Amino acid sequence: MSSEYRLLIDTTDEKGLVYNISKILFNYNLNIETNSEYVDKDVNKFFMRTVISGEFDKAALLADIKAVLPQDAAIKLSKNTKKDIVILATKEAHCLGDILIRYISGELHGNIKAVIANHDTLKDLVEKFNIPFVSISHEGLDREAHEKMMIQAIDTFHPEIIVLAKYMRILNPPFVNHFKDKILNIHHSFLPAFIGANPYKQAWERGVKIIGATAHYVTSDLDEGPIISQDIVRVDHTYSWEDMRDAGRNVEKVVLSNALNLLLNDKVFVYGNKTVVL
Amino acid sequence: MSSEYRLLIDTTDEKGLVYNISKILFNYNLNIETNSEYVDKDVNKFFMRTVISGEFDKAALLADIKAVLPQDAAIKLSKNTKKDIVILATKEAHCLGDILIRYISGELHGNIKAVIANHDTLKDLVEKFNIPFVSISHEGLDREAHEKMMIQAIDTFHPEIIVLAKYMRILNPPFVNHFKDKILNIHHSFLPAFIGANPYKQAWERGVKIIGATAHYVTSDLDEGPIISQDIVRVDHTYSWEDMRDAGRNVEKVVLSNALNLLLNDKVFVYGNKTVVL
Amino acid sequence: MSSEYRLLIDTTDEKGLVYNISKILFNYNLNIETNSEYVDKDVNKFFMRTVISGEFDKAALLADIKAVLPQDAAIKLSKNTKKDIVILATKEAHCLGDILIRYISGELHGNIKAVIANHDTLKDLVEKFNIPFVSISHEGLDREAHEKMMIQAIDTFHPEIIVLAKYMRILNPPFVNHFKDKILNIHHSFLPAFIGANPYKQAWERGVKIIGATAHYVTSDLDEGPIISQDIVRVDHTYSWEDMRDAGRNVEKVVLSNALNLLLNDKVFVYGNKTVVL
Amino acid sequence: MSSEYRLLIDTTDEKGLVYNISKILFNYNLNIETNSEYVDKDVNKFFMRTVISGEFDKAALLADIKAVLPQDAAIKLSKNTKKDIVILATKEAHCLGDILIRYISGELHGNIKAVIANHDTLKDLVEKFNIPFVSISHEGLDREAHEKMMIQAIDTFHPEIIVLAKYMRILNPPFVNHFKDKILNIHHSFLPAFIGANPYKQAWERGVKIIGATAHYVTSDLDEGPIISQDIVRVDHTYSWEDMRDAGRNVEKVVLSNALNLLLNDKVFVYGNKTVVL
Repeated sequence: MSSEYRLLIDTTDEKGLVYNISKILFNYNLNIETNSEYVDKDVNKFFMRTVISGEFDKAALLADIKAVLPQDAAIKLSKNTKKDIVILATKEAHCLGDILIRYISGELHGNIKAVIANHDTLKDLVEKFNIPFVSISHEGLDREAHEKMMIQAIDTFHPEIIVLAKYMRILNPPFVNHFKDKILNIHHSFLPAFIGANPYKQAWERGVKIIGATAHYVTSDLDEGPIISQDIVRVDHTYSWEDMRDAGRNVEKVVLSNALNLLLNDKVFVYGNKTVVL
Repeated sequence: MSSEYRLLIDTTDEKGLVYNISKILFNYNLNIETNSEYVDKDVNKFFMRTVISGEFDKAALLADIKAVLPQDAAIKLSKNTKKDIVILATKEAHCLGDILIRYISGELHGNIKAVIANHDTLKDLVEKFNIPFVSISHEGLDREAHEKMMIQAIDTFHPEIIVLAKYMRILNPPFVNHFKDKILNIHHSFLPAFIGANPYKQAWERGVKIIGATAHYVTSDLDEGPIISQDIVRVDHTYSWEDMRDAGRNVEKVVLSNALNLLLNDKVFVYGNKTVVL
Repeated sequence: MSSEYRLLIDTTDEKGLVYNISKILFNYNLNIETNSEYVDKDVNKFFMRTVISGEFDKAALLADIKAVLPQDAAIKLSKNTKKDIVILATKEAHCLGDILIRYISGELHGNIKAVIANHDTLKDLVEKFNIPFVSISHEGLDREAHEKMMIQAIDTFHPEIIVLAKYMRILNPPFVNHFKDKILNIHHSFLPAFIGANPYKQAWERGVKIIGATAHYVTSDLDEGPIISQDIVRVDHTYSWEDMRDAGRNVEKVVLSNALNLLLNDKVFVYGNKTVVL
Repeated sequence: MSSEYRLLIDTTDEKGLVYNISKILFNYNLNIETNSEYVDKDVNKFFMRTVISGEFDKAALLADIKAVLPQDAAIKLSKNTKKDIVILATKEAHCLGDILIRYISGELHGNIKAVIANHDTLKDLVEKFNIPFVSISHEGLDREAHEKMMIQAIDTFHPEIIVLAKYMRILNPPFVNHFKDKILNIHHSFLPAFIGANPYKQAWERGVKIIGATAHYVTSDLDEGPIISQDIVRVDHTYSWEDMRDAGRNVEKVVLSNALNLLLNDKVFVYGNKTVVL
């Protein structure tokens, strides 16, 4: 029985790309389940996500496609199987819990290999779901030493995606680069933005009427990587700052789970500091 | 100087479609400005919207593409110019006004040829914008006679799109069929739905917390044609039914203008009772 | 140490109500933590929710307030403690799971006494949280007999609120009346509405662009009781009906949890077929 | 015939406030049409908005209420009549146009006395509606001189509210203080925020998925005054920056008109850098 594969192409745009690629797919007699393309004329980039099925020689197909693409092209052929995930957390349960419930009810197209946290708070919750919980306290360690231990622990599980489910530690370039383009983060966001401690309290003092959440890839510039998904929730003057935080949690968990779903389905391309979702 | 054209293809899906079409475009040496495709596997339908530019023989291109497509294929090559619009209205100004303001400020990619109404209420407003206002009262006429006069008046202006901007008359099959796939309507919508007179009052009595608006193509089944765009606005118990109506107007005008924009840009395909927006 | 109480008044409106009530609260030397009132002029109804604190004789306060209100007044003095909840479910985990995660993380201002279901599917999930799971299959029972068993089981736990977390059985008047004004339901909702089997498939066939969820009190008229909370999520033509269902689940769980939160905080008044949320 | 008045009280909170105020209203035999109160416990502030009707001596009522309130109390008795508005604009028509259409169709509970702009672009549009258009170019003038002329022109019309409908000039403290608590502004807002020229282009480069709009009172700190209303619109990678700007315009005009509506109905209290909307 044949499987589905996702063919992802990310390259400089040039005349005839679609023709040249579709010719190869046609010659391999593949079924095209879905096909999406996007051209960003301003930066002359071409993106394609095609779901194909049929019997074929993977290496040969990749080689043939590579031959018709510009030098800088990135090609990926990803089987439609569940990806391995490691979740990092600290103390808050809302984002982690939402993913666990999806996981246990078969909604998540991924395998949670472990939850790793710098506190023990969530240990009981995670172990209810028979998922390994690894606790790596940062107490008494400098940032570098702690991150090294985290990297080591994460690597044990060989995840394709690392989800920061309210992991409340700043990540340094060595960590981020070690897991390049694999780290998904969620953070609250506000109009206007609030920097510093307890942004919910600042937002409350400022009387904001909406609270947002942004899911993004993590780059060295924390909270500033390419945005994958965003949404907001409405609040008003009757909300205490704790009410605002609770409202924010609702939108955070939904936005993070949606973004994770996009990653599990290979739907997100990154270029520059932005994403294309196909 | 060459122009942009929108090539729209709507056909039964089959292997090699993209290859065959892209081969022709490549051979004509056309620039692909944007390209979107969608396949609905459940009904085996293929949709493509490609914006092309370059010098070419239109008739030849269409013939060549037709030759590689299934028999039932619909092909359209639409120049990127402003389409002619006729707006039908009754007494309410919010949707009409929104379109007029976009028009006067150059935001609307279309020409408003006329506003035709069954009341005189909006005459002053329309004439401020130097647009012909045609008043065709339904008083003393049976539905059939009134619609015949409406058809005649509309035909004078040869519109590509007819916008029902809160035109409060039910349209009969002869009218709808005369302007098949050209009529855009906006109507309020509620969860749950309210049938009969003054739906806002019913919605208020029911204490709804959101009010929606739906823009759709008009088919013989009024308020039930293929949906193009929808949105909602939040309300609460402090809203009188007039407040709900005013809130509904805000969302109606934005949804209608957005849908009109999609039509002016040839972005909407209809099949069965649904749309694909590419 | 003194506690907080919520004083809820629901009565015919008349001149001097606020004066008369506030005079009593003042004479009892109570602290007013928050105070909200709403008058519906159309039906001449007055609603008040006041959070008070201080030392006082409950019975005396209630008697004094009763004395200054119209005959038909409903008065409730509810201590700010966690209410007991019983959740009814069938097979779907999303709404139940969301409540469980809030519960375990201390976010839910309520006690989950039990989950009662007509299938065993969710047993494992519920028992992870050390919450009693009662399975009452409807197989081989007529509706009346099954509901009697359900009522008996629920009554064992003396809940103040019964949450239908995707409980997929129609409830009959005897059941509904037994738990009058205590049953909270969530159901998907669409614009337009779809009646009958698999509404998500119908919505998909109709090409809706938004999917809603409505949390409401259950009355004899299922899916038609007073609305407490509503929200929507956007979808488009690329969604399969399963994608639409998954999107709908996101909005269902958030809307249900928000509505439950309002009930746990005594914020909802019901009158006619609508609610006032103070 | 008696009129409706809005009684607005903004004061330090203390025990017995509601009792003392409601006693006076009762003694004057006034009808309470609606009544809203809000107490911010964190800053010990009390806000009340009551709509009253009946025959009464205004000066006496105000004096009697003043007598029972703390020293710092602000009391306002505002007749339910249309307020005078002056609109400032530059070149963009969307916000101005939305207000004009509401005005002409009787939806706006206010009188537009004039539109004053630093460019002539909108002259034709405004004069269609028989509203004075005053053009005060900033060319050849320093900021101070230009603002003086603006103040003089605005003062001619004695507006109660000044609406900045995309007036693209920074306002200095002398201007802002001259019209303290009277200036309403709309500005686009983003998550994250973008500072400097062409924020839409920056937002596009950053690949944001939502675009917001914030209506707020203007204080000396432009774009940072107390927020009255906010909303957002969804965008995606297929939007050019011009598409994002157009989407932003939709949300700007609706948010500004909603905020203006709140001001015209005396529904907004300001304290610190936030608002209470009753």
